[in-house]
Amino acid sequence: MVDIVMKFGGTSVADAARIRASAALVAAEAATGAAVAVVVSAMAGETDRLIALAEQLGGGLGEDESDVILSSGEQVSSALMALALKEKGLKAQSFQAWQSAIWVDGAPGSARISGFDTAAVEAAAKAGVIPVFAGFQGIDAAGRVRTLGRGGTDLSAVAIAAALGARCDIYTDVDGVYTTDPRIEPKAQRIDAISHDEMLELAAQGAKVLQTRSAEMAKASNVPLRVLSSFAEPGTAIGTRVEDESRIAERRIVSGVAYTRDQARIVLLGASDRPAVAAEIFGALADVDIGVDMIVQGRARDAGTVNIEFSVDRRELDRAMSVMETAHGDAREIIHETDLAKVSVVGLGLNRRADVARILFRALGAKGIDVKVIATSEIRISALIANDAVENAVRALHSAYGLDDRAGGG
Amino acid sequence: MVDIVMKFGGTSVADAARIRASAALVAAEAATGAAVAVVVSAMAGETDRLIALAEQLGGGLGEDESDVILSSGEQVSSALMALALKEKGLKAQSFQAWQSAIWVDGAPGSARISGFDTAAVEAAAKAGVIPVFAGFQGIDAAGRVRTLGRGGTDLSAVAIAAALGARCDIYTDVDGVYTTDPRIEPKAQRIDAISHDEMLELAAQGAKVLQTRSAEMAKASNVPLRVLSSFAEPGTAIGTRVEDESRIAERRIVSGVAYTRDQARIVLLGASDRPAVAAEIFGALADVDIGVDMIVQGRARDAGTVNIEFSVDRRELDRAMSVMETAHGDAREIIHETDLAKVSVVGLGLNRRADVARILFRALGAKGIDVKVIATSEIRISALIANDAVENAVRALHSAYGLDDRAGGG
Repeated sequence: MVDIVMKFGGTSVADAARIRASAALVAAEAATGAAVAVVVSAMAGETDRLIALAEQLGGGLGEDESDVILSSGEQVSSALMALALKEKGLKAQSFQAWQSAIWVDGAPGSARISGFDTAAVEAAAKAGVIPVFAGFQGIDAAGRVRTLGRGGTDLSAVAIAAALGARCDIYTDVDGVYTTDPRIEPKAQRIDAISHDEMLELAAQGAKVLQTRSAEMAKASNVPLRVLSSFAEPGTAIGTRVEDESRIAERRIVSGVAYTRDQARIVLLGASDRPAVAAEIFGALADVDIGVDMIVQGRARDAGTVNIEFSVDRRELDRAMSVMETAHGDAREIIHETDLAKVSVVGLGLNRRADVARILFRALGAKGIDVKVIATSEIRISALIANDAVENAVRALHSAYGLDDRAGGG
Repeated sequence: MVDIVMKFGGTSVADAARIRASAALVAAEAATGAAVAVVVSAMAGETDRLIALAEQLGGGLGEDESDVILSSGEQVSSALMALALKEKGLKAQSFQAWQSAIWVDGAPGSARISGFDTAAVEAAAKAGVIPVFAGFQGIDAAGRVRTLGRGGTDLSAVAIAAALGARCDIYTDVDGVYTTDPRIEPKAQRIDAISHDEMLELAAQGAKVLQTRSAEMAKASNVPLRVLSSFAEPGTAIGTRVEDESRIAERRIVSGVAYTRDQARIVLLGASDRPAVAAEIFGALADVDIGVDMIVQGRARDAGTVNIEFSVDRRELDRAMSVMETAHGDAREIIHETDLAKVSVVGLGLNRRADVARILFRALGAKGIDVKVIATSEIRISALIANDAVENAVRALHSAYGLDDRAGGG
């Protein structure tokens, strides 16, 4: 019943003029005969204003009543968008989570979508009414409002598209996914088409345009995405298609370069070489929800011992070091290093190229950038480097992997 | 399960400090062992801000989506109040209309409460959780949010108190119902106790402290009310009790003087003296929802004709004159007059006093105030006078009916 779910973020509904401009994009899509549904974020700045209000009375993120307060932001913008669509002569109706029946599990402020009863929405769409969903929210089994955490409206949009068997168009303030951050490398190119796997790796490695959770859900439910600018005139936006690998005609070796600043590294020197040691350490970190990345284990100086090192987000370093007080594998010494960053190259073709690591070492070495750790996956190669080398490293890798001069086409 | 429903208006939840102060009043009431529920308005100014937002996109009062937008104001304040109560160590939970199951009929912006499923709220109260209701809203049979119109949170509070068999305490920015407007007559006294009938007449005749619809509902469902200041320290507010006549020990003759500015008068000179004429004219006005007041019919100059006159709200004058184009009773001439006001004296004892009208005429005559029309009911006498004579008339009547020097007690 619905062909396209169109999602508009905060800057795309920031005020009456922006809401009208976004409504014009919906009207243009509807004029092609496509059945559309809309999902909106709160007006830009509104979520911050509301959480500040809650905080004045002791309600922070992750509190029941804070979620009631936060969800009002999307409630207002969904109704405003419905008004803007009516102004254009379209039929439209706002749907809050309790009306559209979007069910969630989990804690306030970080709930997960568990179900979506499409009956009410399909009835509306059948009657020619464009449903406008308040994103970022759901109702739990106890009948309480829960929000989905930052970027949650993307999740709402992907989940709704998955349930309705629709495509999901993410309208935002940039015109697509780029080969790297254009603020660092002006030669960055918009990517026309990218696979779900690559999008997920780019998001997970720091590309900001789509949240990792949304990219994961789109991949898991095989929802085709487009990332588009809501600032383009109706009918002119091209954007980036994110879809099943099989639908991408031209397979490029590398799709993009992503980066994450503020990483930290922990090294356990001379840990016991028992098989269970790594499981103990990383199990203890997982128990307190600390994400660990770039694990390296190697034989140490003394017989029967190993060195184990891994990286964590800088903000998790103190907690991770506390965990090491009990889960240390009898290490001789535990050291840590901060002011690190991770640069990653992502591409479906990386696993077919033998010289991928060599290109990376050469490109970074030529710039005098020291690689602390290197890690690879099927479609990614990452290097831990100094924080202040990020810009140089991104530019060097963008060039070395042939992204500088490539046409934008896919 | 609930003894007292405590209602807080916009100024009582205007910011974090005011919400905290109001929460302290709830905590003090709960500390006496009373089971309490809370009903809140939107933060002062919020409803105006939200309707202005809706208007920017063509949504005015009385529009489906405007109600979705407006109801977010009470959603936010109900959750903030729940946070403030939790801060004080109480258990509390916000309830939106879709959760507490407050059902309504009627148009957007002016719905009427038709039902209230108390199960969820009684379960909460039983568990020691203070329910905090978002006022001003309900859900219609189609599952859409509807607001109740200005002053709607009072209506919500009275309806909830009626359904729960509770008393309803209306916390506001004044400390009770006064014998008249203290801004006009500094000798105005707070009334300790007043009957539902008198409260209804005072509200209908212009006293602002309680909306007419709320006073009507309190009377119809026999809910005892108290009108109190939320600016008083916990435990110190006295306020005004509004209750069944039989419970009021001392019956005063007159309770108060109310006024309404901006009235207009329409006079049909020489209308046909057929019995059906008045029914035609007032039926036609009722058909378009124009409220008519102070009707006088008298024999006219020409035989077989009558003069019919009545007052309407100034804002309805143009519409009323249009109605007169077809429903005119063959009147020789139709004239109208504006810049009028109505002053009313309300009291349970008025019908027992023969000289009530004489006191009014004398008091106003002594001040040189011309009485255009006079009308009486069982417990009220009203006079139509010039707009600019309101202050003088209110003071004269307040004095003439012995309200100046009376002790506040009831």
